[in-house]
Amino acid sequence: MRVAILGLGTVGRAVAERLLDERWRRGVVDRGHEPPDLVAIGVREPGRSRGIDLPESVDLSDDLPGVIAQDDIDVVVESLGGLEPAGSLILSTLAAGRSVVTTNKALIAARGPELEAMTLQSGAVLRFEAAVSAGIPILAPLVRDLAANRITSLSGILNGTTNHILTAMARDEADYAGALADAQRLGYAEADPTADVEGHDAVAKLVILVRLAFGSWLDTAEVRRTGISGVTADDVEAAGERGEVIKLLCRAARSADGTVTATVAPTAVVRGSAIGSTDGVTNIIEIEADPVGTVAFRGPGAGGPATASAVLADILAIARGDGSSWG
Amino acid sequence: MRVAILGLGTVGRAVAERLLDERWRRGVVDRGHEPPDLVAIGVREPGRSRGIDLPESVDLSDDLPGVIAQDDIDVVVESLGGLEPAGSLILSTLAAGRSVVTTNKALIAARGPELEAMTLQSGAVLRFEAAVSAGIPILAPLVRDLAANRITSLSGILNGTTNHILTAMARDEADYAGALADAQRLGYAEADPTADVEGHDAVAKLVILVRLAFGSWLDTAEVRRTGISGVTADDVEAAGERGEVIKLLCRAARSADGTVTATVAPTAVVRGSAIGSTDGVTNIIEIEADPVGTVAFRGPGAGGPATASAVLADILAIARGDGSSWG
Repeated sequence: MRVAILGLGTVGRAVAERLLDERWRRGVVDRGHEPPDLVAIGVREPGRSRGIDLPESVDLSDDLPGVIAQDDIDVVVESLGGLEPAGSLILSTLAAGRSVVTTNKALIAARGPELEAMTLQSGAVLRFEAAVSAGIPILAPLVRDLAANRITSLSGILNGTTNHILTAMARDEADYAGALADAQRLGYAEADPTADVEGHDAVAKLVILVRLAFGSWLDTAEVRRTGISGVTADDVEAAGERGEVIKLLCRAARSADGTVTATVAPTAVVRGSAIGSTDGVTNIIEIEADPVGTVAFRGPGAGGPATASAVLADILAIARGDGSSWG
Repeated sequence: MRVAILGLGTVGRAVAERLLDERWRRGVVDRGHEPPDLVAIGVREPGRSRGIDLPESVDLSDDLPGVIAQDDIDVVVESLGGLEPAGSLILSTLAAGRSVVTTNKALIAARGPELEAMTLQSGAVLRFEAAVSAGIPILAPLVRDLAANRITSLSGILNGTTNHILTAMARDEADYAGALADAQRLGYAEADPTADVEGHDAVAKLVILVRLAFGSWLDTAEVRRTGISGVTADDVEAAGERGEVIKLLCRAARSADGTVTATVAPTAVVRGSAIGSTDGVTNIIEIEADPVGTVAFRGPGAGGPATASAVLADILAIARGDGSSWG
């Protein structure tokens, strides 16, 4: 597999580093796979220093449409983020019959039906395991390993930034503003934290899970959403006195008549429960299904290495002939 | 896919019931799969009542070699248990180029290299997702979704019977003999509980996980094993005073030089940890890997419905063209 990466931020760099690392490549061979080759990187500002030494065999270019048009590329990894130009570049790549791996949850949630239709039309593969709770294998298990089940509901923590803030509020008896400022200082929250703290990021991930668990696309506006900016130190303390902790709980369920409801909202849960004991930037997804019962998946929700793990697994899956993440 | 089931105990019956259930079959179609057809069942005593109504389209026979020799069968589900005749029947089926799904952890652990060699020689597929922590999707995630990772260690609770007993000892301040008797009365422990309480069942599962995580087969005798029959009420109480609980912890690690060590032993773990808070018959597997970090999988470790979920997923995986569980 010949791979091009679009975007050389934290994630793009983490993926490139492994693809170029001889020890990682030997490990892939040991596990029975052919290691993919990095051949091109597209960036918006090629002059910038990025803390990675690229060998001469890797083209670095700021001509993003030129990178994806190269005939000798099998898979394009999109890690630019944002709706455009990522959306147009992914659609062009798929239209040309080449596979795409993306980490872009906002794009999949916003334009899922259009992207899915393009994979059906072109036969190209689109995988996005890293888009939901980056390091947790969840999309492939939902579609493949739980394929014999009817999924009735899922719930969990899908955003590490807000879980870090809520964990700090409970542990340090801090107020929201102080815990947010700490998270920003530690690099767990962005300078403009809106997408995380108001729940938009979690909504996008929940829309993707709903498609894979229940077979239908929700519009992001159909998810009932409340962020954590209104959670007070008093709320957290009162929950603690009841043996509970407040989490930004994501929940989706399908009723007997097929109606799907989805909610992202601060919710008090029992402290010792699987979700209640998931702290810091860790994510968890709990699935109720028939016949299996309750299964839960826990792991790192973000970060370069965890995201690279999922992106690289998607590249190996495409090499193996697996289809798109929606099955 | 035309399916034969060998054995009509709890698991065989749970699988047969779904294959014959129109609602389950419609769900499989909704999720984009062709529902497999049950065509034959092999049992050792065909006269016995089994609480399941079989349609005339399903052959019920006590000629087990005759069942697996039928040319029109694509997959044989082995749920007889025990080393023989299960081992010979599975090897014959694979040798004939037909696929096998088994729940038989003791057999895979005892004869793994031989079974693996037979799949390589014949090109037939052998899958056994249900053999380790039945309802938890763990083998496919290890081999496929974590394929980009070097796994350094894994640990967890792989036996529901002992975890039920240890949970009861901690909760009710019961002694071992009383908690075992209760578990037997509730159907969580067998009349002869040796395989569970002395750790043999957990050792077999750990041997399978070691093969998938580290690529090598251990002999079951190479796993250091201590059962729970020596755990006293005093041990449990002393752990509780330190904020810990005793679990039958399964652990395997690979050192930098490639040496694999594996242990099953009662071990005190922090009560609020992911493993320490896994109670009753629930199983958990925690994996440390590079680059992803720590990921954990939790769910039902046994029981007809959970086991059926994994067996049926394996049948669908074979229909899709996936290979054997060892990748």
